[in-house]
Amino acid sequence: MSRFLHSRYQDMEPYTPGEQPGENEYIKLNTNESPYPPSPGVLSAIDGEQTKRLRLYSDPEGKVLVDAIAGFYGVDRKQVVVGNGSDEILAFCYMAFGQRGIRYPEISYGFYPVFAKTFGVDGEAVALQKDFSIRTADYHHAGKTVLLANPNAPTGICLSLDQIEDILRTNEEDVVIIDEAYVDFGGESSVKLLSRYDNLVVVQTFSKSRNLAGARLGFALTSEALAEDLNKMKFSFNPYNVNRLSMIAGAEAMKDREYFLECTGRIQRTREKTAKALRELGFTVLPSKANFLFARPESMGGDVYFRRLREKGILVRHWTNPKIADYVRITIGSEEEMERFCQVTKEIVEE
Amino acid sequence: MSRFLHSRYQDMEPYTPGEQPGENEYIKLNTNESPYPPSPGVLSAIDGEQTKRLRLYSDPEGKVLVDAIAGFYGVDRKQVVVGNGSDEILAFCYMAFGQRGIRYPEISYGFYPVFAKTFGVDGEAVALQKDFSIRTADYHHAGKTVLLANPNAPTGICLSLDQIEDILRTNEEDVVIIDEAYVDFGGESSVKLLSRYDNLVVVQTFSKSRNLAGARLGFALTSEALAEDLNKMKFSFNPYNVNRLSMIAGAEAMKDREYFLECTGRIQRTREKTAKALRELGFTVLPSKANFLFARPESMGGDVYFRRLREKGILVRHWTNPKIADYVRITIGSEEEMERFCQVTKEIVEE
Repeated sequence: MSRFLHSRYQDMEPYTPGEQPGENEYIKLNTNESPYPPSPGVLSAIDGEQTKRLRLYSDPEGKVLVDAIAGFYGVDRKQVVVGNGSDEILAFCYMAFGQRGIRYPEISYGFYPVFAKTFGVDGEAVALQKDFSIRTADYHHAGKTVLLANPNAPTGICLSLDQIEDILRTNEEDVVIIDEAYVDFGGESSVKLLSRYDNLVVVQTFSKSRNLAGARLGFALTSEALAEDLNKMKFSFNPYNVNRLSMIAGAEAMKDREYFLECTGRIQRTREKTAKALRELGFTVLPSKANFLFARPESMGGDVYFRRLREKGILVRHWTNPKIADYVRITIGSEEEMERFCQVTKEIVEE
Repeated sequence: MSRFLHSRYQDMEPYTPGEQPGENEYIKLNTNESPYPPSPGVLSAIDGEQTKRLRLYSDPEGKVLVDAIAGFYGVDRKQVVVGNGSDEILAFCYMAFGQRGIRYPEISYGFYPVFAKTFGVDGEAVALQKDFSIRTADYHHAGKTVLLANPNAPTGICLSLDQIEDILRTNEEDVVIIDEAYVDFGGESSVKLLSRYDNLVVVQTFSKSRNLAGARLGFALTSEALAEDLNKMKFSFNPYNVNRLSMIAGAEAMKDREYFLECTGRIQRTREKTAKALRELGFTVLPSKANFLFARPESMGGDVYFRRLREKGILVRHWTNPKIADYVRITIGSEEEMERFCQVTKEIVEE
């Protein structure tokens, strides 16, 4: 730290991303990436001609991408805001809608409290219930912005649309942000509530169900007025926030509904198979609607299991926070990767 | 605007980027892009294999890119911070070093006052001298962060390293940020002062001299302590801020010193030829060390000249701010584009 740093940030703990080891060293089940490549349409669209055009700025309005997203979800293009990953979209939300504070679950995406600090927002973390589920009544009449990951991370547990609607209805004077990074693996999207609630922001990402984590693409689907606010943040921070090749990749991925359904379907089937195998080995496995499992081994701590897996070439995610330290989060990889994972886990348990 | 927007932003005027019309409709001399494609190394590095790997997150440390930049400038890798365009790097600077306010020239990059509003920083704009040059004494003992574009935009006028050093020496208790977006077209980089001043941040971009505006890549070269501060901002805002393909493109562009020198050399020669032609047509042309000219026609307003060019298929940039409304900013395009530009200008002047 220098002697010049703003006092707000001197004691700030930045977000810690999951390890990114040298490629191919590990079976990488630690950052919720897709085991499948991007849609074939992406591969053919990014060619030498497009690379040559990198000399020109990208379209600050992101028309091609915005139109593809609006088309997929059946909303107006004015309801779509695109960003350099959903992290950037969330940052814009904190800036625009954080004035009265933001309430979120204590166990959720680790970036929520970091953003609060970053943008000087009063962040309020509410404990989960004993079974790691969200008590929705805790978010009724919040008197501040509400932010919920649905499904939640790292638990994978999903709220129903009725529960989300209760929260929207009881917070008409505040914004409700639903972070749907993992919704395409079995959850129900709140997009269908947009026509009835002008205080709803649905945040999604291309990093998981669209196989494009490395392209850095996220978006918000919301009311026209809230989209205007978020775009005001974008144009006051980084108007050209999405680069040319990611713009094209995102548009192509969004147009390929069939491949999207194929990939997300496979991941869901592999998830259920893996959950069953873990339960047979004595694990407690939370009911997941995401592309990961949150699981607790019976006979060892989460940290021990994490280390043993790592020694055997498999990376998962473990947190030292005592409330979840018994658990690890396991990204669902390919069928072959998860067979290997189950086999290695069996070895560890039987040692 | 929604009823939920933070009061700070309700009257904010976002930055207005230059027009991005449908491609090929105009000769585009309005956003200071390079007329030349990226280095051949970029074109061959971005292939199907790399596109497939978009399923994986990019390296949050950006090692490949950081190493290429550190190698080019002969600094330690710990002195380099990479961002999603230099706009993002500037945003991190405002966040980290804006606590006591930031002083910048009144006529400069239009984003400086926008960032001040965005991050709640006290921005102080200091008038230029009559000849549009910066009076360096205005920045001695500022008592706050100093931010100067060198060369300045949209004037193209450059400060000497001696002048920069005077500003650094008289602001030892504050950060001095030199925005060198245009330095590679004839200016002298302050990078060589890094070894003597730990309060210096040099900001550069791949958008102009590296022919990669559409990749969105910028970086800071600074002391290790200040780099640590800026990386703290990055990891508290968007750790994966640079996408995979731009990371590769940037590293390849940085390694190709020969192509870089060839492109920037050609642009400088074309600039001087264009300046001479404009002066012969009665224009006032400021002495530019950038990839653009700031020029005033003799016999018509800047707005009229801008509109006439547009009608004839050439886009330049014009601002309505009365202090510079007589002028337009003309990006230096290819040799052929500038010949056409000079010919069209001659027609307009002679009408």
